Amino acid sequence: MRLKNVKGAKEIIDASPYIIKNPWKYKGRCDEIFGNKNKICLEIGMGKGDFIINMALKNKSINYIGIEMFDSVIVRAVQKLEGYDIPNLRFIRFDATNIEEIMERDIDTLYLNFSDPWPKNRNEKRRLTSERFLNRYDLIFKKDNHIIQKTDNRKLFEFSLMSYVNHGYLIKDISLDLHNDDYDNVMTEYEKRFSELGFKIYMVEVIKVDKTLHVK
Amino acid sequence: MRLKNVKGAKEIIDASPYIIKNPWKYKGRCDEIFGNKNKICLEIGMGKGDFIINMALKNKSINYIGIEMFDSVIVRAVQKLEGYDIPNLRFIRFDATNIEEIMERDIDTLYLNFSDPWPKNRNEKRRLTSERFLNRYDLIFKKDNHIIQKTDNRKLFEFSLMSYVNHGYLIKDISLDLHNDDYDNVMTEYEKRFSELGFKIYMVEVIKVDKTLHVK
Repeated sequence: MRLKNVKGAKEIIDASPYIIKNPWKYKGRCDEIFGNKNKICLEIGMGKGDFIINMALKNKSINYIGIEMFDSVIVRAVQKLEGYDIPNLRFIRFDATNIEEIMERDIDTLYLNFSDPWPKNRNEKRRLTSERFLNRYDLIFKKDNHIIQKTDNRKLFEFSLMSYVNHGYLIKDISLDLHNDDYDNVMTEYEKRFSELGFKIYMVEVIKVDKTLHVK
Repeated sequence: MRLKNVKGAKEIIDASPYIIKNPWKYKGRCDEIFGNKNKICLEIGMGKGDFIINMALKNKSINYIGIEMFDSVIVRAVQKLEGYDIPNLRFIRFDATNIEEIMERDIDTLYLNFSDPWPKNRNEKRRLTSERFLNRYDLIFKKDNHIIQKTDNRKLFEFSLMSYVNHGYLIKDISLDLHNDDYDNVMTEYEKRFSELGFKIYMVEVIKVDKTLHVK
Protein backbone atom coordinates (compact mmCIF):
# COMPACT_ATOMS: atom_id res chain seq x y z
CA MET A 1 0.00 0.00 0.00
CA ARG A 2 1.39 3.38 -0.94
CA LEU A 3 0.01 6.69 0.22
CA LYS A 4 1.00 10.26 -0.44
CA ASN A 5 3.64 11.72 1.80
CA VAL A 6 2.27 12.70 5.16
CA LYS A 7 3.83 15.88 6.50
CA GLY A 8 5.73 15.29 9.70
CA ALA A 9 5.21 11.53 9.51
CA LYS A 10 8.75 10.74 10.57
CA GLU A 11 8.53 12.94 13.66
CA ILE A 12 5.16 11.48 14.68
CA ILE A 13 6.51 7.94 14.29
CA ASP A 14 9.70 8.66 16.20
CA ALA A 15 7.73 10.11 19.10
CA SER A 16 5.31 7.19 19.43
CA PRO A 17 5.70 4.76 22.35
CA TYR A 18 4.33 2.02 20.08
CA ILE A 19 7.30 2.13 17.73
CA ILE A 20 10.28 -0.14 18.40
CA LYS A 21 13.17 2.07 17.43
CA ASN A 22 16.07 -0.39 17.43
CA PRO A 23 14.50 -3.69 16.46
CA TRP A 24 17.94 -5.28 15.90
CA LYS A 25 18.62 -5.38 19.60
CA TYR A 26 15.61 -7.64 20.19
CA LYS A 27 16.63 -10.30 17.67
CA GLY A 28 16.09 -13.67 19.37
CA ARG A 29 14.56 -12.02 22.43
CA CYS A 30 11.41 -10.25 21.30
CA ASP A 31 9.87 -11.37 24.62
CA GLU A 32 11.78 -8.49 26.21
CA ILE A 33 9.76 -5.99 24.20
CA PHE A 34 6.70 -7.01 26.17
CA GLY A 35 8.30 -8.19 29.41
CA ASN A 36 6.44 -11.50 29.38
CA LYS A 37 6.52 -14.95 27.76
CA ASN A 38 3.14 -14.72 26.04
CA LYS A 39 2.69 -15.78 22.45
CA ILE A 40 3.90 -13.31 19.84
CA CYS A 41 2.01 -12.79 16.60
CA LEU A 42 3.52 -10.83 13.74
CA GLU A 43 1.77 -9.05 10.89
CA ILE A 44 3.97 -8.22 7.92
CA GLY A 45 2.48 -5.34 5.95
CA MET A 46 0.18 -4.07 8.69
CA GLY A 47 -0.90 -1.05 6.65
CA LYS A 48 -2.94 1.40 8.69
CA GLY A 49 -3.20 -1.13 11.49
CA ASP A 50 -6.93 -1.84 11.89
CA PHE A 51 -6.41 -5.61 11.96
CA ILE A 52 -3.55 -5.75 14.42
CA ILE A 53 -4.95 -3.06 16.72
CA ASN A 54 -8.27 -4.89 16.98
CA MET A 55 -6.55 -8.23 17.48
CA ALA A 56 -4.46 -6.77 20.31
CA LEU A 57 -7.52 -5.25 21.98
CA LYS A 58 -9.39 -8.55 21.67
CA ASN A 59 -6.63 -10.90 22.84
CA LYS A 60 -4.85 -9.20 25.69
CA SER A 61 -2.78 -12.24 26.62
CA ILE A 62 -1.18 -12.39 23.18
CA ASN A 63 1.49 -9.96 22.01
CA TYR A 64 1.30 -8.39 18.57
CA ILE A 65 4.03 -6.87 16.43
CA GLY A 66 3.13 -5.10 13.20
CA ILE A 67 5.70 -4.40 10.50
CA GLU A 68 5.20 -1.83 7.80
CA MET A 69 7.79 -0.27 5.53
CA PHE A 70 6.14 3.01 4.59
CA ASP A 71 6.25 6.01 6.95
CA SER A 72 3.18 7.44 5.28
CA VAL A 73 1.16 4.30 6.12
CA ILE A 74 2.40 3.36 9.58
CA VAL A 75 1.85 6.94 10.74
CA ARG A 76 -1.90 6.39 10.35
CA ALA A 77 -1.77 3.48 12.77
CA VAL A 78 0.31 5.47 15.22
CA GLN A 79 -2.13 8.39 15.08
CA LYS A 80 -5.07 6.09 15.84
CA LEU A 81 -3.41 5.04 19.08
CA GLU A 82 -2.79 8.48 20.58
CA GLY A 83 -4.28 8.47 24.05
CA TYR A 84 -4.62 4.68 24.20
CA ASP A 85 -2.40 2.33 26.16
CA ILE A 86 -2.19 -1.12 24.59
CA PRO A 87 0.78 -2.88 26.23
CA ASN A 88 0.56 -5.99 24.02
CA LEU A 89 1.01 -4.08 20.74
CA ARG A 90 4.12 -2.68 19.07
CA PHE A 91 5.09 -1.59 15.55
CA ILE A 92 8.31 -1.71 13.57
CA ARG A 93 8.95 0.44 10.52
CA PHE A 94 11.02 -1.96 8.48
CA ASP A 95 11.37 -3.70 5.13
CA ALA A 96 10.44 -7.36 5.72
CA THR A 97 12.90 -8.40 3.03
CA ASN A 98 15.41 -8.35 5.86
CA ILE A 99 13.19 -9.83 8.55
CA GLU A 100 15.89 -12.26 9.66
CA GLU A 101 18.02 -9.27 10.76
CA ILE A 102 15.57 -8.45 13.53
CA MET A 103 13.94 -11.78 14.47
CA GLU A 104 15.14 -15.30 15.23
CA ARG A 105 12.88 -17.96 16.76
CA ASP A 106 10.69 -15.18 18.15
CA ILE A 107 7.29 -15.69 16.52
CA ASP A 108 4.32 -18.03 17.06
CA THR A 109 2.00 -16.92 14.27
CA LEU A 110 2.53 -14.81 11.15
CA TYR A 111 -0.37 -12.90 9.57
CA LEU A 112 -0.21 -11.88 5.91
CA ASN A 113 -3.23 -9.75 5.07
CA PHE A 114 -3.92 -8.50 1.55
CA SER A 115 -0.27 -8.44 0.58
CA ASP A 116 0.80 -6.86 -2.67
CA PRO A 117 0.05 -9.51 -5.36
CA TRP A 118 2.95 -8.46 -7.62
CA PRO A 119 1.07 -9.93 -10.61
CA LYS A 120 3.90 -10.01 -13.13
CA ASN A 121 5.90 -13.22 -13.23
CA ARG A 122 9.17 -11.34 -13.11
CA ASN A 123 8.15 -9.99 -9.69
CA GLU A 124 7.28 -13.40 -8.23
CA LYS A 125 10.13 -13.17 -5.73
CA ARG A 126 8.67 -10.02 -4.24
CA ARG A 127 5.45 -11.73 -3.18
CA LEU A 128 5.43 -12.28 0.57
CA THR A 129 4.63 -15.97 0.03
CA SER A 130 7.42 -16.68 -2.49
CA GLU A 131 10.01 -19.32 -1.68
CA ARG A 132 12.48 -16.55 -0.91
CA PHE A 133 10.24 -15.23 1.85
CA LEU A 134 9.22 -18.67 3.13
CA ASN A 135 12.90 -19.47 3.60
CA ARG A 136 13.24 -16.33 5.71
CA TYR A 137 10.16 -17.13 7.76
CA ASP A 138 11.69 -20.53 8.61
CA LEU A 139 14.16 -18.60 10.77
CA ILE A 140 11.70 -16.50 12.74
CA PHE A 141 9.25 -19.05 14.17
CA LYS A 142 9.83 -20.27 17.72
CA LYS A 143 8.95 -23.86 16.86
CA ASP A 144 6.21 -24.83 14.44
CA ASN A 145 5.67 -22.49 11.51
CA HIS A 146 2.15 -21.07 11.51
CA ILE A 147 0.88 -18.63 8.87
CA ILE A 148 -2.62 -17.22 8.37
CA GLN A 149 -3.15 -15.40 5.10
CA LYS A 150 -6.09 -13.46 3.71
CA THR A 151 -6.40 -11.95 0.26
CA ASP A 152 -8.97 -11.06 -2.35
CA ASN A 153 -6.45 -11.69 -5.13
CA ARG A 154 -7.14 -15.05 -6.75
CA LYS A 155 -3.79 -15.37 -8.49
CA LEU A 156 -1.84 -14.52 -5.36
CA PHE A 157 -3.89 -17.05 -3.42
CA GLU A 158 -3.32 -19.83 -5.97
CA PHE A 159 0.38 -19.03 -6.04
CA SER A 160 0.59 -18.96 -2.25
CA LEU A 161 -1.11 -22.34 -1.83
CA MET A 162 1.35 -24.00 -4.19
CA SER A 163 4.25 -22.20 -2.56
CA TYR A 164 3.33 -23.21 1.00
CA VAL A 165 2.76 -26.84 0.11
CA ASN A 166 5.96 -27.09 -1.92
CA HIS A 167 7.76 -25.69 1.12
CA GLY A 168 6.48 -28.47 3.39
CA TYR A 169 3.43 -26.78 4.90
CA LEU A 170 0.16 -28.59 5.59
CA ILE A 171 -3.18 -26.84 5.18
CA LYS A 172 -4.89 -26.59 8.57
CA ASP A 173 -7.87 -24.59 7.36
CA ILE A 174 -9.00 -22.91 4.17
CA SER A 175 -11.93 -20.83 2.98
CA LEU A 176 -12.55 -19.67 -0.56
CA ASP A 177 -15.29 -17.33 0.67
CA LEU A 178 -14.39 -16.28 4.19
CA HIS A 179 -17.26 -13.86 4.73
CA ASN A 180 -19.81 -16.54 3.92
CA ASP A 181 -18.26 -18.99 6.36
CA ASP A 182 -18.60 -19.01 10.11
CA TYR A 183 -15.33 -17.42 11.25
CA ASP A 184 -14.64 -14.96 14.05
CA ASN A 185 -12.87 -12.69 11.57
CA VAL A 186 -11.18 -9.37 12.36
CA MET A 187 -11.18 -7.26 9.20
CA THR A 188 -8.53 -4.98 7.72
CA GLU A 189 -9.46 -1.57 6.24
CA TYR A 190 -8.95 -2.96 2.75
CA GLU A 191 -11.01 -6.06 3.49
CA LYS A 192 -14.04 -4.02 4.62
CA ARG A 193 -13.95 -1.97 1.45
CA PHE A 194 -13.47 -4.85 -0.95
CA SER A 195 -15.92 -7.26 0.59
CA GLU A 196 -18.56 -4.52 0.48
CA LEU A 197 -17.89 -4.32 -3.24
CA GLY A 198 -18.75 -8.02 -3.52
CA PHE A 199 -15.24 -9.45 -3.81
CA LYS A 200 -14.71 -12.86 -2.26
CA ILE A 201 -12.09 -13.05 0.49
CA TYR A 202 -9.80 -16.08 0.50
CA MET A 203 -8.20 -17.36 3.70
CA VAL A 204 -5.73 -20.12 4.40
CA GLU A 205 -4.06 -21.30 7.61
CA VAL A 206 -0.93 -23.40 7.13
CA ILE A 207 1.44 -25.14 9.51
CA LYS A 208 4.83 -26.78 9.19
CA VAL A 209 5.10 -28.95 12.21
CA ASP A 210 8.58 -30.27 12.42
CA LYS A 211 11.34 -28.70 10.38
CA THR A 212 13.57 -31.73 10.72
CA LEU A 213 10.98 -33.90 8.96
CA HIS A 214 10.69 -31.60 5.96
CA VAL A 215 11.36 -33.46 2.74
CA LYS A 216 12.40 -31.34 -0.24
CA MET B 1 -25.24 -38.72 -10.33
CA ARG B 2 -28.49 -40.72 -10.20
CA LEU B 3 -30.93 -41.07 -13.02
CA LYS B 4 -34.23 -42.87 -13.36
CA ASN B 5 -34.07 -46.49 -14.37
CA VAL B 6 -33.40 -46.94 -18.05
CA LYS B 7 -35.30 -49.85 -19.52
CA GLY B 8 -32.99 -52.53 -20.86
CA ALA B 9 -29.89 -50.73 -19.55
CA LYS B 10 -28.28 -53.90 -18.31
CA GLU B 11 -28.66 -55.64 -21.67
CA ILE B 12 -27.28 -52.66 -23.59
CA ILE B 13 -24.28 -52.46 -21.24
CA ASP B 14 -23.58 -56.18 -21.41
CA ALA B 15 -23.63 -56.10 -25.21
CA SER B 16 -21.21 -53.16 -25.56
CA PRO B 17 -17.63 -53.78 -26.70
CA TYR B 18 -16.57 -50.80 -24.57
CA ILE B 19 -17.47 -52.50 -21.31
CA ILE B 20 -14.85 -54.56 -19.50
CA LYS B 21 -16.89 -57.42 -18.13
CA ASN B 22 -14.44 -59.09 -15.77
CA PRO B 23 -12.26 -56.27 -14.53
CA TRP B 24 -10.77 -58.48 -11.77
CA LYS B 25 -8.78 -60.44 -14.30
CA TYR B 26 -6.89 -57.32 -15.39
CA LYS B 27 -5.73 -56.33 -11.92
CA GLY B 28 -2.04 -55.39 -12.20
CA ARG B 29 -2.15 -55.80 -15.98
CA CYS B 30 -4.57 -53.23 -17.34
CA ASP B 31 -2.15 -52.82 -20.25
CA GLU B 32 -3.63 -56.03 -21.64
CA ILE B 33 -7.01 -54.35 -22.03
CA PHE B 34 -5.50 -52.13 -24.69
CA GLY B 35 -2.70 -54.35 -25.99
CA ASN B 36 -0.07 -51.63 -25.63
CA LYS B 37 2.08 -49.93 -23.00
CA ASN B 38 0.66 -46.43 -23.43
CA LYS B 39 -0.26 -44.30 -20.44
CA ILE B 40 -3.52 -45.18 -18.75
CA CYS B 41 -5.80 -42.48 -17.36
CA LEU B 42 -8.73 -43.35 -15.13
CA GLU B 43 -11.87 -41.36 -14.44
CA ILE B 44 -13.81 -42.40 -11.36
CA GLY B 45 -17.44 -41.33 -11.66
CA MET B 46 -17.44 -40.82 -15.44
CA GLY B 47 -21.19 -40.16 -15.52
CA LYS B 48 -22.52 -39.99 -19.06
CA GLY B 49 -18.98 -39.98 -20.41
CA ASP B 50 -18.61 -36.68 -22.28
CA PHE B 51 -15.28 -35.89 -20.65
CA ILE B 52 -13.59 -39.24 -21.08
CA ILE B 53 -14.93 -39.82 -24.61
CA ASN B 54 -13.62 -36.45 -25.77
CA MET B 55 -10.29 -36.98 -24.02
CA ALA B 56 -9.91 -40.37 -25.76
CA LEU B 57 -10.74 -38.87 -29.14
CA LYS B 58 -8.28 -36.04 -28.58
CA ASN B 59 -5.34 -38.06 -27.21
CA LYS B 60 -5.20 -41.27 -29.21
CA SER B 61 -1.87 -42.40 -27.76
CA ILE B 62 -3.26 -42.39 -24.22
CA ASN B 63 -5.62 -45.07 -22.91
CA TYR B 64 -8.70 -44.11 -20.92
CA ILE B 65 -10.74 -46.16 -18.48
CA GLY B 66 -13.98 -44.75 -17.09
CA ILE B 67 -15.61 -46.15 -13.98
CA GLU B 68 -19.24 -45.56 -13.09
CA MET B 69 -21.40 -47.45 -10.64
CA PHE B 70 -24.88 -46.76 -11.98
CA ASP B 71 -26.28 -48.79 -14.90
CA SER B 72 -28.71 -45.98 -15.67
CA VAL B 73 -25.82 -43.52 -16.15
CA ILE B 74 -23.15 -45.58 -17.86
CA VAL B 75 -25.71 -46.76 -20.40
CA ARG B 76 -25.86 -43.19 -21.74
CA ALA B 77 -22.14 -43.24 -22.47
CA VAL B 78 -22.42 -46.66 -24.10
CA GLN B 79 -25.27 -45.48 -26.31
CA LYS B 80 -23.26 -42.46 -27.49
CA LEU B 81 -20.56 -44.77 -28.78
CA GLU B 82 -22.72 -47.03 -30.95
CA GLY B 83 -21.17 -47.08 -34.40
CA TYR B 84 -17.86 -45.57 -33.24
CA ASP B 85 -14.60 -47.44 -32.78
CA ILE B 86 -12.38 -45.87 -30.12
CA PRO B 87 -9.72 -48.44 -29.25
CA ASN B 88 -8.15 -46.36 -26.45
CA LEU B 89 -11.36 -46.15 -24.41
CA ARG B 90 -13.04 -48.65 -22.09
CA PHE B 91 -15.60 -48.51 -19.29
CA ILE B 92 -16.11 -50.48 -16.11
CA ARG B 93 -19.40 -50.60 -14.24
CA PHE B 94 -18.10 -50.79 -10.71
CA ASP B 95 -18.22 -49.22 -7.25
CA ALA B 96 -14.89 -47.43 -6.78
CA THR B 97 -15.05 -48.16 -3.06
CA ASN B 98 -13.40 -51.43 -4.04
CA ILE B 99 -11.03 -50.03 -6.68
CA GLU B 100 -8.08 -51.99 -5.27
CA GLU B 101 -9.87 -55.23 -6.22
CA ILE B 102 -9.48 -54.45 -9.91
CA MET B 103 -6.34 -52.30 -10.17
CA GLU B 104 -2.79 -52.43 -8.84
CA ARG B 105 -0.03 -50.16 -10.13
CA ASP B 106 -1.97 -49.76 -13.36
CA ILE B 107 -2.72 -46.02 -13.58
CA ASP B 108 -0.79 -42.89 -14.58
CA THR B 109 -3.41 -40.20 -13.96
CA LEU B 110 -6.70 -40.18 -12.09
CA TYR B 111 -9.47 -37.73 -12.99
CA LEU B 112 -12.14 -36.80 -10.47
CA ASN B 113 -14.75 -34.61 -12.11
CA PHE B 114 -17.65 -33.10 -10.19
CA SER B 115 -17.75 -35.88 -7.64
CA ASP B 116 -20.60 -36.09 -5.17
CA PRO B 117 -19.75 -33.53 -2.44
CA TRP B 118 -21.43 -35.52 0.37
CA PRO B 119 -21.88 -32.27 2.32
CA LYS B 120 -22.73 -33.71 5.72
CA ASN B 121 -19.77 -34.32 8.03
CA ARG B 122 -20.94 -37.83 8.83
CA ASN B 123 -20.54 -38.69 5.13
CA GLU B 124 -16.99 -37.35 4.86
CA LYS B 125 -15.61 -40.85 4.24
CA ARG B 126 -17.75 -41.20 1.14
CA ARG B 127 -16.12 -38.25 -0.62
CA LEU B 128 -13.80 -39.49 -3.35
CA THR B 129 -10.97 -37.36 -1.90
CA SER B 130 -11.29 -38.56 1.70
CA GLU B 131 -8.32 -40.21 3.36
CA ARG B 132 -10.03 -43.58 2.91
CA PHE B 133 -10.05 -43.14 -0.85
CA LEU B 134 -6.59 -41.57 -1.04
CA ASN B 135 -5.24 -44.66 0.72
CA ARG B 136 -6.85 -46.81 -1.95
CA TYR B 137 -5.51 -44.69 -4.77
CA ASP B 138 -1.98 -45.17 -3.38
CA LEU B 139 -2.28 -48.77 -4.58
CA ILE B 140 -3.39 -48.12 -8.15
CA PHE B 141 -0.78 -45.70 -9.50
CA LYS B 142 2.09 -47.13 -11.51
CA LYS B 143 4.66 -44.86 -9.90
CA ASP B 144 3.98 -41.23 -8.99
CA ASN B 145 0.45 -40.43 -7.88
CA HIS B 146 -1.18 -37.87 -10.17
CA ILE B 147 -4.73 -36.60 -9.66
CA ILE B 148 -6.60 -33.88 -11.54
CA GLN B 149 -9.85 -32.78 -9.94
CA LYS B 150 -12.56 -30.38 -11.06
CA THR B 151 -15.61 -29.31 -9.09
CA ASP B 152 -17.97 -26.39 -8.65
CA ASN B 153 -18.51 -27.29 -5.01
CA ARG B 154 -16.51 -24.96 -2.80
CA LYS B 155 -16.71 -27.06 0.34
CA LEU B 156 -15.66 -30.23 -1.47
CA PHE B 157 -12.75 -28.34 -3.03
CA GLU B 158 -11.56 -26.93 0.31
CA PHE B 159 -11.86 -30.36 1.89
CA SER B 160 -10.01 -32.01 -0.99
CA LEU B 161 -7.09 -29.57 -0.88
CA MET B 162 -6.53 -30.24 2.82
CA SER B 163 -6.96 -33.95 2.30
CA TYR B 164 -4.42 -34.17 -0.55
CA VAL B 165 -1.80 -32.13 1.25
CA ASN B 166 -2.21 -34.02 4.50
CA HIS B 167 -1.72 -37.20 2.48
CA GLY B 168 1.66 -36.03 1.14
CA TYR B 169 0.60 -34.55 -2.19
CA LEU B 170 2.11 -31.39 -3.66
CA ILE B 171 0.02 -28.94 -5.66
CA LYS B 172 1.28 -28.84 -9.24
CA ASP B 173 -1.39 -26.49 -10.54
CA ILE B 174 -4.54 -24.86 -9.24
CA SER B 175 -7.27 -22.58 -10.56
CA LEU B 176 -10.10 -21.10 -8.55
CA ASP B 177 -11.82 -20.00 -11.76
CA LEU B 178 -10.89 -22.47 -14.46
CA HIS B 179 -13.02 -21.02 -17.23
CA ASN B 180 -11.42 -17.62 -16.83
CA ASP B 181 -7.92 -19.04 -17.05
CA ASP B 182 -6.07 -20.18 -20.11
CA TYR B 183 -6.50 -23.95 -20.01
CA ASP B 184 -7.16 -26.46 -22.77
CA ASN B 185 -10.13 -27.79 -20.83
CA VAL B 186 -12.40 -30.66 -21.88
CA MET B 187 -15.77 -30.17 -20.22
CA THR B 188 -18.16 -32.65 -18.64
CA GLU B 189 -21.95 -32.44 -19.23
CA TYR B 190 -22.43 -31.10 -15.74
CA GLU B 191 -19.63 -28.54 -16.15
CA LYS B 192 -21.18 -27.07 -19.31
CA ARG B 193 -24.49 -26.61 -17.58
CA PHE B 194 -23.15 -25.15 -14.36
CA SER B 195 -20.60 -22.82 -15.86
CA GLU B 196 -23.33 -21.43 -18.11
CA LEU B 197 -25.26 -20.65 -14.95
CA GLY B 198 -22.32 -18.57 -13.76
CA PHE B 199 -20.81 -20.99 -11.24
CA LYS B 200 -17.05 -20.90 -10.89
CA ILE B 201 -15.23 -24.13 -11.66
CA TYR B 202 -12.34 -25.09 -9.38
CA MET B 203 -9.46 -27.25 -10.61
CA VAL B 204 -6.44 -28.72 -8.88
CA GLU B 205 -3.65 -30.98 -10.09
CA VAL B 206 -1.71 -32.78 -7.38
CA ILE B 207 1.24 -35.15 -7.38
CA LYS B 208 2.89 -37.39 -4.84
CA VAL B 209 6.29 -38.04 -6.25
CA ASP B 210 7.96 -40.71 -4.22
CA LYS B 211 5.92 -42.81 -1.87
CA THR B 212 8.94 -43.85 0.13
CA LEU B 213 9.66 -40.22 1.04
CA HIS B 214 6.16 -39.59 2.35
CA VAL B 215 6.23 -38.35 5.94
CA LYS B 216 3.07 -38.81 7.98
